[in-house]
Amino acid sequence: MIEIERKFLVLSNDFIAKAFSKKRIVQGYLNSNPERTVRIRIKEDKGFLTIKGKGNATGTTRLEWETEIPLSDAEKLLAICESGIIEKIRYEVKVGNHIYEVDIFGGENEGLLMAEIELKDENESFEKPIWIGKEVTNDRRFYNAYLSGKPFKSW
Amino acid sequence: MIEIERKFLVLSNDFIAKAFSKKRIVQGYLNSNPERTVRIRIKEDKGFLTIKGKGNATGTTRLEWETEIPLSDAEKLLAICESGIIEKIRYEVKVGNHIYEVDIFGGENEGLLMAEIELKDENESFEKPIWIGKEVTNDRRFYNAYLSGKPFKSW
Repeated sequence: MIEIERKFLVLSNDFIAKAFSKKRIVQGYLNSNPERTVRIRIKEDKGFLTIKGKGNATGTTRLEWETEIPLSDAEKLLAICESGIIEKIRYEVKVGNHIYEVDIFGGENEGLLMAEIELKDENESFEKPIWIGKEVTNDRRFYNAYLSGKPFKSW
Repeated sequence: MIEIERKFLVLSNDFIAKAFSKKRIVQGYLNSNPERTVRIRIKEDKGFLTIKGKGNATGTTRLEWETEIPLSDAEKLLAICESGIIEKIRYEVKVGNHIYEVDIFGGENEGLLMAEIELKDENESFEKPIWIGKEVTNDRRFYNAYLSGKPFKSW
């Protein structure tokens, strides 16, 4: 249940040509507090409920718990979420032995592109393609839960 | 996913002799906001995650969504809940065609006894045994989510 993730800004659309999957994501929060985030996500035609705890001091390790839920339940639960529904297109791109998940945000977060990579431990090395920019793992403003309340366009 | 519930204070322990089940409950909240309550519950050796929306004007109808989760997951999720874990013993008592769930609270809510009955519609009639006291369906102070933050002993 513990995940190690690093997050980066994305500098260009060059990753799209290399992507092996593309999925539409709509998500909202039943709690956007980073100590106990509760997220409802619709990814194409599937629903998910995800709970995340607070990260450690370096922000890379967080308790994460997820379960798939019926799409119709996800739609009903999305309706009682906090205001600030997030829409994005997620691309998956294989780079070396890892997969980057790259999100192109829409709606109130248009203009934001962000990539995430999951690692087995905090010191695992990984390739950084040229479209990967500044690391923002420790910057709370780039948490989706934060973007839900303070969207990128309002910065 | 819509439930109709009515809640009452309980005047005596007379219901215990008539109860057909008795279970220990420990629960906490990932969000105690009544607009989008997210509850983690351990009932004897089972874990549950329950989400409730805001009630209607009369407080009797709320969106409710529940899923069973592994006990070990429930324990980990309970650890990231808001402060104010609730402990209670729940008795089930059959009265006429209905089942009352009667909770004897412990810990910071000791002294509180509350009964709940689930109805098919808001006008369905039901029997009220002599140990049933004042109705508190519309009184937010008696929501478990509220008791989590403002326990009975502190009133």
